[in-house]
Formats: sequence, structure tokens, C-alpha cells
Amino acid sequence: MEAIYQDIARQLAARMDAGEFPPGSRLPSVRQLAASHGVNSLTALAAYRWLEQKQRVVARPRAGFFAALPAASAAAALHRALPSPATLVEVDSRMSQLVALSASDVAVQLHMAEAHHSLYPSAELARRLQTALLQRPELIGAYLPAAQHERLCGLLQQMAAGWQMEVKADEILFCNGITEGISLALRHLTRPGDTVAVETPVYFGLLQTLAALGLKALEIPCTPDAGLSLEALEFALQYGPPVRCLVTVTNYQNPTGARMPDDHKKRLLALARRHGVTLIEDDVFGELYFGEARPTPLKAWDRDGDVIYCASFTKSLAPSFRLGWLSGGRHHAALERLRASSSLVSPALLLGTLTDLLASGDYARISQRLRRQLARQMEQVADAVLAAFPRGTTLRRPQGGLLLWVEGPEGLDSGRLLEAALRESISFAPGMLFSAEPRFRHCLRLNFGQPWDEAQRQAIVRLGELAAEQLRTTC
Amino acid sequence: MEAIYQDIARQLAARMDAGEFPPGSRLPSVRQLAASHGVNSLTALAAYRWLEQKQRVVARPRAGFFAALPAASAAAALHRALPSPATLVEVDSRMSQLVALSASDVAVQLHMAEAHHSLYPSAELARRLQTALLQRPELIGAYLPAAQHERLCGLLQQMAAGWQMEVKADEILFCNGITEGISLALRHLTRPGDTVAVETPVYFGLLQTLAALGLKALEIPCTPDAGLSLEALEFALQYGPPVRCLVTVTNYQNPTGARMPDDHKKRLLALARRHGVTLIEDDVFGELYFGEARPTPLKAWDRDGDVIYCASFTKSLAPSFRLGWLSGGRHHAALERLRASSSLVSPALLLGTLTDLLASGDYARISQRLRRQLARQMEQVADAVLAAFPRGTTLRRPQGGLLLWVEGPEGLDSGRLLEAALRESISFAPGMLFSAEPRFRHCLRLNFGQPWDEAQRQAIVRLGELAAEQLRTTC
Ligand SMILES: Cc1ncc(COP(=O)(O)O)c(C=O)c1O
Ligand SMILES: Cc1ncc(COP(=O)(O)O)c(C=O)c1O
Repeated sequence: MEAIYQDIARQLAARMDAGEFPPGSRLPSVRQLAASHGVNSLTALAAYRWLEQKQRVVARPRAGFFAALPAASAAAALHRALPSPATLVEVDSRMSQLVALSASDVAVQLHMAEAHHSLYPSAELARRLQTALLQRPELIGAYLPAAQHERLCGLLQQMAAGWQMEVKADEILFCNGITEGISLALRHLTRPGDTVAVETPVYFGLLQTLAALGLKALEIPCTPDAGLSLEALEFALQYGPPVRCLVTVTNYQNPTGARMPDDHKKRLLALARRHGVTLIEDDVFGELYFGEARPTPLKAWDRDGDVIYCASFTKSLAPSFRLGWLSGGRHHAALERLRASSSLVSPALLLGTLTDLLASGDYARISQRLRRQLARQMEQVADAVLAAFPRGTTLRRPQGGLLLWVEGPEGLDSGRLLEAALRESISFAPGMLFSAEPRFRHCLRLNFGQPWDEAQRQAIVRLGELAAEQLRTTC
Repeated sequence: MEAIYQDIARQLAARMDAGEFPPGSRLPSVRQLAASHGVNSLTALAAYRWLEQKQRVVARPRAGFFAALPAASAAAALHRALPSPATLVEVDSRMSQLVALSASDVAVQLHMAEAHHSLYPSAELARRLQTALLQRPELIGAYLPAAQHERLCGLLQQMAAGWQMEVKADEILFCNGITEGISLALRHLTRPGDTVAVETPVYFGLLQTLAALGLKALEIPCTPDAGLSLEALEFALQYGPPVRCLVTVTNYQNPTGARMPDDHKKRLLALARRHGVTLIEDDVFGELYFGEARPTPLKAWDRDGDVIYCASFTKSLAPSFRLGWLSGGRHHAALERLRASSSLVSPALLLGTLTDLLASGDYARISQRLRRQLARQMEQVADAVLAAFPRGTTLRRPQGGLLLWVEGPEGLDSGRLLEAALRESISFAPGMLFSAEPRFRHCLRLNFGQPWDEAQRQAIVRLGELAAEQLRTTC
């Protein structure tokens, strides 16, 4: 049996479909709608809510309800709320398949978002761990002693000051990788059914996290050149469904490698503030810059304490340590409580070792060496791709991180390309993983964090040949 | 300049704060609110929307708007969750105070639920860590290679078989301590507002986790002798609110030290099944048994795969490693997805080291030594308490774990006792922490995981004197 409000909603939808209320036009007020159906305004309101959920109407504060733009229009990509749950589930299972690849014995693995283990100084870290535990046996306990905790926070504060970001030492929270930080931030800010803006293309881990929390993703275009499109975002915030927060990878975005320009960071802050959207900044690659200076996080310009800043040593020091941290501004206390009840604490031993690495300057040395190697490898991989891939392939050389986004010629199906590549024991991440929509079929993401050698070079040559073959047989 | 709707919203919020509309109460209808401010209903509606965004009000379809508590605040959720709000908020903040104690320089610390770091073999573990990383440098990567993962699961499977529990190797999931396991299980099974049965007294970490998830706790009596009262549980399930799941610490419960008898475990399974209640078994202390055989988890008799079994090496091997694991039966796949999106993976290095410790038999040796020491210390602490505390004090010597539950004479206020004790640099966990109700005011929990020495003995003598003094001056 249908409730009255649903009945009213359907009638209104029918009138919209019939052209009485064209896309973008103002709809009857709640009071008018109530009167015309002889119901109270709460029922009329329920009808609008329902239509809002179905993305047929859009509410604008102090202006009323408007007929939504049709899904097929140019604005649809921005304005249509969601990848249906089904789509996300699909992304979810694709993601698992990809992770499974790392378990298999693929010879040339270019699909991960992590550098090869040989790029990290295992022996040195092993020594450091041993020394820390021998000198401070209390590090075997669950809790990092308060004085050591303070010391570590002080060191992070100092580090951040080096990139023009002020962090309060008592506003630093450790977490199990950035994944936990972002998950906590989302759990704090949203409720199931809420809409979260994300970049598109975006790393699939985020789509997975959103799916697990029952959240809808509103995908905002992001390009290798300029990163997140502020124009698209503004348009979406104006005409799209209400957005609670935006997750943005400001530095060397995954997968595009884009670095958001500083003036965009400032404009984004103002825009978010104007629309009451909280920003979650994912700075997982910020430490892997190739240029002179480490990029300044957006958080550095945050005057309202509304940005939740998340960083991690998982890429720049030791993936296995899983040491992420965040600074939550005015959300900090709530995030702290949520963290305590979700997984309590991070391993004191690893935190203690991180302290030693930061204090001694070893971390600075380790990450610098890693950056240099990645910068070299990026050029090698990019050169090889441009030489090997069919005409029409484009890429922009990222200035940090470890991921190269390759846009193949139109018509390329990188999913099928992956199947062919896997048969020759080569893996990469196909474009379809990075959006709930079939927008990036012709793209692929390559990891340049693997030590460059002849096998790598040949694998890329082979990928180029396979792509050319596919295009030939398709035409 | 503030819009009219914001002004209206702020006025309404002030009235809520002033107690005119207590949390959970129905607020004026949109029409009423509009009329009382002389505005149209869209403006009134905008005010509600704004308050909704700020999480001050909640809309319920066809019922109207209700005063909310900020979902983000654990204390607030506790408010809503459990019977006596004031007490619960206090539990939360007292809990933080207690954790802060561990940071302070209290001389004799008897308040934690963890053994002293000197009881764990730091040097040996440090060597093991170093060897693991030198021999398998790939352990610095985020993911434990598949073959090693399988090996570790096989070893856990073997270990569990030793206590008559069958676990499928592909149904083992690692997590950051049991805390994460339980948090994931609750997130999977419940939605905010649901009721979860717990033991009373119960460790406060669980109350905190429930609060953070917006869950209500239904406290079921648990005694040092027999553990959870099945009679009370059956009664509650029959006559109380619908219960989604039960969290039970089957072996050496915190704080009572109770071990649930095997026949109770079987009866509990049948009871839970009859009422459609999923069991979450927290076996964090199971490895710390003092007798001949390790207790069999309740999960061993689970034929339906409905029990979510959670275990951890945080107490029996290395608290700092934060290595928990779970076996989720038919919920397993969902838990796996939830884990991946919440914190991705556990540190591969620590998992790899655990593998070595299990395979070499070192873990068996380490945990046996720890058990022996704890068993000795339990007797020493229990003897000292019985000798020092006023008449009417009772306790039951636990046969495992590291916690002693002491029931003082009626009239003892262990909260006040703690204040007096802290002035003399002695800490313990007061009874009021273990329930939302003021049921355990006369009780205290002592940690016998600290190496026994004269300072410990004297501290307990002093606690007894302070308790006697308090009772004298109260009468
Ligand atoms: C953009 C981005 N954010 C977060 C993560 C996950 O980070 P962590 O390993 O610190 O949880 C990744 C991993 O690749 C990533 O690419
Ligand atoms: C009964 C119980 N469950 C769970 C925990 C937390 O365990 P973990 O440190 O493995 O997260 C504790 C800690 O004291 C506990 O006593």
C-alpha cells in the first residue's frame, strides 16, 4: 500500500514529465501543494523529500523546490546524485579482483598504488625497530607513554611547519593508515544516505569506503592538469543534491597525479565554506614531491578549523607500519573518541620508531632518496609509454607520487586490454575502477614505483602493442 | 547578516538547550513554527533543515521533527542509549580520566587491563622483528604476501584446534586489536538506535564503543562465579526490547574474572538461536588460563556459523602489536569488506613476526611463562586484599586473565576511595566504570599483571586502611 505522500509525489512527478514543470522550474510551495491535495504541510513536505531522494526535485534554501534537470542533460554528470548501489557493489568486487592480483604471480606488476618493497630501507628500519624496543622496553605496551607521545606530536608539528602548515600538537591523532582517518571522518560527518562529493576519476578505495558506509558519491571532474574542477564543483553544489562533505586528494591525486594549485586550494576553501561543505583532505602522496618544495596542504589556509586533514607515512616511509595521522580542527575531539572506540590505538612500537626516524633526520633522508628514485622512474615509464602506445595516447607527467595516468585513444577498452596483458603476466589498473560511471574505459593507471629494468620496459612495449592490436581489430 | 530562517533556528535551538524540548521530544510542526514567527512554512522548513544539517533535529517521516543529540558526541549517544543519562556521560569522561592516569606518574598502577611491560619479552620480540624483516624484506610492504598469509592462517587454525575449535583458514580476518573486531561486528549487525545486550559489570571500552555507534546497552547480570546469568538473559529477551546481538567475554570476563562453564556456553548458543540474537564472543583473555587446559570458546559449538568470534594477541604476546583476529562465520565476507574500507590491513611486518613466533613454538613458551607468572601474582594480590580489606570484602580468585574483582562491604564508595588512593599515588579501577547504573559503587577492579613487590603489597595494605577509614567515617 502506498502512503499518501508517495501518491502526491507520483502525481507531481507525472506533471513534471508531462512538461507542466520543465527541468529547472520552480515547483508549487509546500503550502500550495498541501492545499491542492487537502493534506497538511508535513505530508506535502514528505512528498518533496521523497522526490528529492529520487533526485526528481532539488531544494534551494529560502527559494523552494525546483524540478531537477533530466539525467540526460549536460549537467547530469554533476547533478545526478548517484551511482546506484549496484554499480558501487560492482566496483567493490572489481577492486577485490585487483587486490587478488597482487597475491598472484604476475611477473610485471603495475597495478598497485604502492612502491616496490626494495625502494624502502628494510634493513635500516629493522635496526631502528630493534634499538627502539631494546632502549625503551615499555614500547611493547599498548599505549605510547605520554611524554613520548608529546615528543612525536611535536616533531610532526615541526615537519608540517616546514610546509607552511600550522598544526596544534594536541590536535594530532594517529590512525591505521589514511584509510582509517578518512573512514572516521566520514563516520563522524555523515549518516547513511548522505551524499559525499569526490573527484572523478578517484581511487577505488574511497568508493569502497563510501559504499560500506551507505553513502552516495557525487563525482566531480578532476583533470591531470588542474585537479578538481572548481567550476564543476560550484555548479554541483548549486544545482545538485545537498552535499555533506568533499574528499579531495590535493597533492598528486590518485589516479590522475594532479596537484591542485595553491590558489585553487584557497578558492576551494571559500567555496566549501559558502556551501557549508566540510573538506576532508587526503594528503597521502604529499611527501612524494619531485620539485624543490613540498606542496602546502589546503589545510594550511583553513581559518575555521573545518578541514579534516589526513596524512600518512604509508607511502613515504614504510607501508607496513600503517602509520597515518590526522588533524581534525573543530571535529578533532569527536574523531578522537570515534577512533578510541574503533581500534583503540596504533602500535606504540611503530610510533616510537617513527619518533626516532623523525628526530634523527633519517626520515628526511629516506624520503628524499625515495623521491629522487620515483622522479627518475616516472620519466622512464612516461617515455616508454609515449614511445610504445598508439597515436592519440596522452599523459601528463606528474610532479610527485607514484602513479601515471594514461589516456588511451578513444575506443580503447582498458578492461579488455588488462585481460590480454594478464595472459602475458603484466598487470595495471584499468580506468573502469576509478568511477562508478563508464567514463574512463580508455584510460589506465600505471605504477612507476617499481624499480626500472628491462622487463618493465618490455612490458610497456607489449602493452602498447596490445593496445594497438585491440584498436585495429575493433575498427 | 543572518537569514530569517537561521534566526528562527537559533531561537529554537536555544529553547532546546534550555530544556523546553528535551532530547528525543517532538518539536513544533512546520506550520506551528511558521505561525509563531509570522513567516511562511518554507522559511520554517528551512530553519528545520538547517538544524537538521547541524544535527540538532531529526526528521521522522509522517511524524515530524524531533530534538536530536549530536550523533557525533559519544557522551550524547550514551545519554540517549542507556537508562541513567547523567551517570553515563560521567562514565565516558571518567574513562578518559582513567586512561590519563596511565600517563601520569602514579607510583603503583593497578587500574589498567594490561600486564606490565616487563612481563613481555621485549628483547626477544625485537630480535624476532629484525630477523623477519631482514629475511623477508617484502614485509615492509602493506600487504602480507598471499603464501605467508595462508601459512599464518594455517597456524592459527592449528592453535584453535588445540582448544577444540574448528576454524576455516579462509575465515580468519586480522584486525587492530579485538576492539576493531568488535566494532566491525557491531557496525555490521546493528544500526544506530538498536539494542545490544552486554554483561554487567562490563569493561567500559565496550560501553564506549556502543555509545560511539549510537547503540543502546541492555545490561545482563554477570557474576564472578558463573559469568553471564542465562536466566536473566532469557527473561530480558522475552520481556525486554528487541535485542540484535549480545557481546560476551566468555573466558575470564573483564572485570569479574568469570569463566563461563561449558554447559552454559552451549545453552547460551541455543538461547541466542531461539531468539535470533547473534553472539559476538570476545575471547581476549582466553589464552591467559591458569589451569591445565585452555578454555574452549563458545564458538566451538556453533553449528550455524552465526557466532562472530574475536580473539587477540594483545594480552598474551605483545600489546603493542595490536594483533587481533576474528572468525565471522556467515558474516565473514561482510566483515572482511567492512575491515578493508575501515583500515585496510594490519601491519604485514607484525603479522609476519607472529607467524615466526607461532611456527617456532616461541609463542607457546612465551605465553606459558606469562600465565605462570600471572597465576602466582593473582594469589599474592588476592591474599593481600583479603588480609588488608575490611570485613565484608569478598572476592573470587579468577582462574585466568589479569584482573581481580573485589566486592567491598556495602556502603563502600570506591570512587571516593580512588580519590584518596590517588593522593597516595595508588590507582585502581572503581566499580562505577563498569555499568551505566550505580550498581557497583562498592566494588573495585585490581590488576594483578604488575610484578609483585613490597610496594605493591604496601599499596594494597594502604587501600584496605583507606577503605576501613571511609566506612568508619561514613557510619
Ligand atoms: C589517494 C589515496 N588515499 C588513501 C590511500 C590509502 O592510504 P593508507 O595506506 O595510508 O591507508 C591510498 C592508497 O593507495 C590512496 O591512493
Ligand atoms: C574484555 C576486553 N575486550 C577487549 C579489550 C580490548 O582488546 P584489544 O586491546 O585487543 O583491542 C579489552 C582490553 O582490556 C578487554 O578487557
